Amino acid sequence: MAEISNKEVTNREEDYSKWYNNLVVKADLAEQSAVRGCMVIKPYGYAIWEKMHDILDRMFKETGHVNAYFPLFIPKSFLSKEAEHVEGFAKECAVVTHHRLMNDPNGNGVVVDPSAKLEEELIVRPTSETIIWNTYKNWIKSWRDLPILCNQWANVVRWEMRTRLFLRTAEFLWQEGHTAHATREEAVTEAQKMVNVYAKFARDFMAMPVVIGHKSETERFAGALDTYSIEAMMQDGKALQAGTSHFLGQNFAKAFEVQYANKEGKLDYVWATSWGVSTRLMGALIMCHSDNNGLVLPPALAPVQVVMVPIFKTDVERDTILARMAEMKKDMEALGLSVKIDDRDNLRPGFKFAEWELKGVPVRIVMGPRDLENGTVELARRVDSSKESVSQEGIAERVRNLMSEIQGQMYQKALEFRDANIIKVDTWEDFKVQIEKGGFLLCHWDGTPETEERIKDETKATIRCIPIDSCVCEEEGKCIYSGRPSHRRVIFARAY
Amino acid sequence: MAEISNKEVTNREEDYSKWYNNLVVKADLAEQSAVRGCMVIKPYGYAIWEKMHDILDRMFKETGHVNAYFPLFIPKSFLSKEAEHVEGFAKECAVVTHHRLMNDPNGNGVVVDPSAKLEEELIVRPTSETIIWNTYKNWIKSWRDLPILCNQWANVVRWEMRTRLFLRTAEFLWQEGHTAHATREEAVTEAQKMVNVYAKFARDFMAMPVVIGHKSETERFAGALDTYSIEAMMQDGKALQAGTSHFLGQNFAKAFEVQYANKEGKLDYVWATSWGVSTRLMGALIMCHSDNNGLVLPPALAPVQVVMVPIFKTDVERDTILARMAEMKKDMEALGLSVKIDDRDNLRPGFKFAEWELKGVPVRIVMGPRDLENGTVELARRVDSSKESVSQEGIAERVRNLMSEIQGQMYQKALEFRDANIIKVDTWEDFKVQIEKGGFLLCHWDGTPETEERIKDETKATIRCIPIDSCVCEEEGKCIYSGRPSHRRVIFARAY
Repeated sequence: MAEISNKEVTNREEDYSKWYNNLVVKADLAEQSAVRGCMVIKPYGYAIWEKMHDILDRMFKETGHVNAYFPLFIPKSFLSKEAEHVEGFAKECAVVTHHRLMNDPNGNGVVVDPSAKLEEELIVRPTSETIIWNTYKNWIKSWRDLPILCNQWANVVRWEMRTRLFLRTAEFLWQEGHTAHATREEAVTEAQKMVNVYAKFARDFMAMPVVIGHKSETERFAGALDTYSIEAMMQDGKALQAGTSHFLGQNFAKAFEVQYANKEGKLDYVWATSWGVSTRLMGALIMCHSDNNGLVLPPALAPVQVVMVPIFKTDVERDTILARMAEMKKDMEALGLSVKIDDRDNLRPGFKFAEWELKGVPVRIVMGPRDLENGTVELARRVDSSKESVSQEGIAERVRNLMSEIQGQMYQKALEFRDANIIKVDTWEDFKVQIEKGGFLLCHWDGTPETEERIKDETKATIRCIPIDSCVCEEEGKCIYSGRPSHRRVIFARAY
Repeated sequence: MAEISNKEVTNREEDYSKWYNNLVVKADLAEQSAVRGCMVIKPYGYAIWEKMHDILDRMFKETGHVNAYFPLFIPKSFLSKEAEHVEGFAKECAVVTHHRLMNDPNGNGVVVDPSAKLEEELIVRPTSETIIWNTYKNWIKSWRDLPILCNQWANVVRWEMRTRLFLRTAEFLWQEGHTAHATREEAVTEAQKMVNVYAKFARDFMAMPVVIGHKSETERFAGALDTYSIEAMMQDGKALQAGTSHFLGQNFAKAFEVQYANKEGKLDYVWATSWGVSTRLMGALIMCHSDNNGLVLPPALAPVQVVMVPIFKTDVERDTILARMAEMKKDMEALGLSVKIDDRDNLRPGFKFAEWELKGVPVRIVMGPRDLENGTVELARRVDSSKESVSQEGIAERVRNLMSEIQGQMYQKALEFRDANIIKVDTWEDFKVQIEKGGFLLCHWDGTPETEERIKDETKATIRCIPIDSCVCEEEGKCIYSGRPSHRRVIFARAY
């Protein structure tokens, strides 16, 4: 039985952007809603997000964090309290001005009741530093109240002009950690710890290699003294910022007057971090691994890890095969695998193959009459389309082991692609050529926002990060653009 | 060591309402935020809600449901599409009218940018039937697409005038199930199934007895043909509606033009249900079980099930006791128990006892020097303050068994209180006397909204439900108010 490629998905090579949009919709992950820029996350997409949620939540708890919940709304005046923060976040946002509708006196449905105008407008949270630090003010009196290590899972709204499913939507789901510490060192350590948690999650569960680094001053979070990020490379060579962790210094503590009495009884301002990842990770996951036949999901995040498709002509064959499959399913589930038998009677096997390929299920098991005779099944891997005929004996253990093998294979594949596309560039001419081909360009930069801006204007490339872990970047050199001296290379790329 | 009652919590008998408010704040469950009517759910409160979430989510999945996520915002015009729904929900709500702020030209922080007015106002969802049925329209073509069994965990906003932590807040967290079916029968069955899931959750996990019943027409969800609810009795004899499940008929399918082709190829409107529980359950949990010393949490929902408090004079005693406790903790955790050792060195044992009582931890284990000598510990139950000295031998199994014992004990206690306060009332004079005492009054009612309204006006009592499961109510009689014939008793009560 030949593989059937899903003709409805655009080719990656023809139009990467269209391929992505197409895939998200065809694979039933998400769709546009009736509200501009807001998406509907469909059950299959949400099931992947739930897995991300559960794993991250466990990792946060293992590192000592607890969950809490803060209001959706932020009083407008709060946004103005931290000078840089207001510049970054008080622009495109959803503003609640009234609290009542009434029947239209002219009979045209409902209209806003002008008498129900709020005294102060409320902003739907674009991020929660302000409302949370206004709350922490009452929680923190002495060093005994510190640290506070809270996380919240929530929806946030940023009124983006150009939206794309998962990558940039007006409303998105995320988690935001907000911690309060007695010392600068402790806060810096926390911010570093959390960017490392994100990197570990990306690598071990998303099978996605990332570079950890500092953001340049220009790209920093509004109100942060330092921003760490994880940067991943998509298959078109563009960068995607997949998570950020901010050292906020005492900025929010000062804006909201949050002081604690230290062991000597002296008052001092509290040190802060915040860190977050969002449903954007879904976009990263899709663009990192998928192909022209559809999604390719890492076993650790696949809602269905194994799909079983029966092939038969007679009812007797059908019943015998499905009965055998049910036994195998039970054995696999006992080992913690998530298994689905596709016993739909109105679809041909080839159609089912294409559908489960589109949905990225890591392993497909096919059993036909001959397999029944021989005690075999056909085992196909989504990641490389390889197939093998294997014994039904010990199939559960074999498939379980295959899962970690595939997980490793996917990470390795993505890593090789990424590393092949990290290129040292030393001249401006070469930069302009290379940036068109995509990839991460490791270059010297003179450290000024002016140079950074000019490079961006001329090439659309930005400094993705000043890497910490992934390459030997500390070396003397000259800025790619200005020729001025530089002590380390940074990563330039075009980005999502 | 004598028990120390927490003097900061108001007495239940003096002022039940104040006792509740006090308890929520003192036990660190939630607090008012800077935004009118919106609460902050603190880590300890959120940990209980997380347990509720996880258990309910599992129960929904076991009954075939999947999660999805729909937009926070609803276009204003959607609310008008279902005639009754608009009356119920398009009143007090948060209205987004603008999508941008700008710097105040006069230098006073930020102001709404008048040029960024939305063409159509957006409503922060008070409930999601309209946006979801507008989405289902595109998901449903034929009978093969049915049923759709979606649930969403989300925040919703209803601009309540009088708010109380957990019980009635402007923003609250909830789940809302929205299902679509081919037939009326299937939808009715679904609505019943889910109210039963809620009742099972209340009984088995919250240790809270509930009455399942139909709502009267007046009390029905706006847009429903039938509403089922679970009604619980609080310790002041008032009723609390803890969950609802609605049979929506074809109302939303007609409003949003959602038709499917049946097996014969004929078009028909789809049948709907919706069902939800919210953070209100937290209020129910608190008011059902707690006492003047604080919370009393059922083991199934307690974030900390066992707290261990050491008593010592010397450092050697301290170290020996804590080492022994650490071993016991490990044994208990191996059996799935959640255990905390309170080794804070700046607090006296009596203070710790009071604090963990306030927080409702089901079991306290105390170990002092004499216990160490005798190989014993003191085991105290929060629910009835009983204490016993028991051997350290086999303590983990003993405590694990104690958990289910306490869970049962709490349910039994609540059930006895509830049943003692369900009273058959047959005269209007008696009704007016009894309603002042609280409790559920089982009365005949003539079935008219007019009578229901008059009774409410005169006594503040409403029909909580027309019970299905909990009492023999089918009998001939005369309406308590009008004297007209009635075929069954219903439950009247004052309610939260």
